[in-house]
Amino acid sequence: MRILGIDPGLTRCGVGVVDLNSNRRASFVAVHVIRTPSTNELPARLLELESGLVELFETYQPDAVAIERVFSQHNVRTAMGTAQASAVAMLIAARNQLDVAMYTPTEVKAAVTGYGRADKSQITAMVTRLLGLAEPPKPADAADALALALCHAWKGQGRARIAEQVSKMAMVNN
Amino acid sequence: MRILGIDPGLTRCGVGVVDLNSNRRASFVAVHVIRTPSTNELPARLLELESGLVELFETYQPDAVAIERVFSQHNVRTAMGTAQASAVAMLIAARNQLDVAMYTPTEVKAAVTGYGRADKSQITAMVTRLLGLAEPPKPADAADALALALCHAWKGQGRARIAEQVSKMAMVNN
Repeated sequence: MRILGIDPGLTRCGVGVVDLNSNRRASFVAVHVIRTPSTNELPARLLELESGLVELFETYQPDAVAIERVFSQHNVRTAMGTAQASAVAMLIAARNQLDVAMYTPTEVKAAVTGYGRADKSQITAMVTRLLGLAEPPKPADAADALALALCHAWKGQGRARIAEQVSKMAMVNN
Repeated sequence: MRILGIDPGLTRCGVGVVDLNSNRRASFVAVHVIRTPSTNELPARLLELESGLVELFETYQPDAVAIERVFSQHNVRTAMGTAQASAVAMLIAARNQLDVAMYTPTEVKAAVTGYGRADKSQITAMVTRLLGLAEPPKPADAADALALALCHAWKGQGRARIAEQVSKMAMVNN
């Protein structure tokens, strides 16, 4: 099963692609960041984001999509932009008749690091280890998108098992 | 020039169509309300809204689009839904290479009633009079969408002239 994780944003939209094999082992496929210039008008930016996402959906043919759930953020303007970017992602997923799973940042952090209040560097470090990447994915949006895909991949395994796996891996790698 | 006014929303999205002739007189063309069931998942609702809007863009072939600008509302969840619905509308406008004008509720109220804090019934009453409609458009979202189109139609005329016209009409009709 191929999972596409999307960390929605107008300035940077992270897209992480992960394959899950029959033993529930996740492997890295690709990671992209779609950027739209803030000097462009909002409708044009949404259209650029749509084109970028449509291309990635076509290239990777995912079986499932995981999108970060938008919450009220400190900056209302940013929250609106994120909500609008996530709408574009949801629209494309629905058009492709794919189920969309939504996860809060806390759920993603807990799934990947075992700790719901992990910071960005901890997420990046764990994603790098869990997917056996040679280098940490950059920027943070790229790592977040992969974390979302991993969160969805392990959804069925229950929190306890995820935490166990994660702590085991963290020990091995430290 | 044909203007399509959109009052974005997931539960009800108002779409008002107004023609502006060479004398800057506005005439009513149509008004629609697209509804998506709240029992459906968000991606499916966005897709339904997209289909509905695409059909109206094809039917009415507008030259310009006016969309209500989303502000932080009291209810954050509602604001997010409105932001996402407006993203769908902007996307379709951009796809059709149409300029999108955004107006705040206060701007729309001021343009149509001459008073930025007018209530919904005042907006409905003025839209009914200004477009010479036999009956008030219902629900309020329909009237709001027509008000948006009128606001855009009169944009070039300056606030003073709009206010003058509006007060003159209000006197005639009262």
